[in-house]
Amino acid sequence: MAACIFCKIIRGEIPSMKIFESEKTLAFLDISPLSKGHSLIIPKFHGAKLHDIPDEHLHEVLSVTKKIALAQGIQDYNVLQNNGKIAHQVVDHVHFHLIPKPNEQEGLGIGWPTKEADKGELQKLLEEIKSKM
Amino acid sequence: MAACIFCKIIRGEIPSMKIFESEKTLAFLDISPLSKGHSLIIPKFHGAKLHDIPDEHLHEVLSVTKKIALAQGIQDYNVLQNNGKIAHQVVDHVHFHLIPKPNEQEGLGIGWPTKEADKGELQKLLEEIKSKM
Repeated sequence: MAACIFCKIIRGEIPSMKIFESEKTLAFLDISPLSKGHSLIIPKFHGAKLHDIPDEHLHEVLSVTKKIALAQGIQDYNVLQNNGKIAHQVVDHVHFHLIPKPNEQEGLGIGWPTKEADKGELQKLLEEIKSKM
Repeated sequence: MAACIFCKIIRGEIPSMKIFESEKTLAFLDISPLSKGHSLIIPKFHGAKLHDIPDEHLHEVLSVTKKIALAQGIQDYNVLQNNGKIAHQVVDHVHFHLIPKPNEQEGLGIGWPTKEADKGELQKLLEEIKSKM
């Protein structure tokens, strides 16, 4: 936590372009934006991945994200949260990207390599997941 | 709402591989998965885009998403919510994708075309957004 860049931003040790702050949540502009208005919404609680964050520190995140989308007046955008280096996570403190999508060139690029799923395998997987919920 | 495929799933008019259901939230397996375990988490409240959903219907979404990630025991995954056709939204009822990223080939593909941002323009944008929050 001492070395975490987002914890440093939360503590005010390094500057940020702060949009919103509450007891549990901070939002600021991404300084390497994918498009105009690209914002980051983070729980102040330090955890690398979504499953590390206690529920009470997650409840407000989407409301704040929505508030920023409304303030920007955007209609087309992606909300993205990456977990793990292979999944494109760069900073190991949970953060949600709000990325406006003004045109094909700017904003998030999405690759969607679906495959046919075997219904029997899906059903088996479903039972496995449900047994652990 | 009558024609919305996710509202039909919520009403039980068409089947789904249901993982979790509460008063406000439903989660089920995506039948055209990007990777094994690809799940959809939706507010039952019908709205096309994130900014259409009342806060009280959003509060539980990330806790449920986290719960499914924990049940699957995954470490690397993306959480994605698309708004607008240009941003890769296909069904016009807000839905969050939980997409495991087991390897480079499977799961979400991400394009990240950042550009250098002008600090002065960012500062101006920040003031604009803050004035509307």
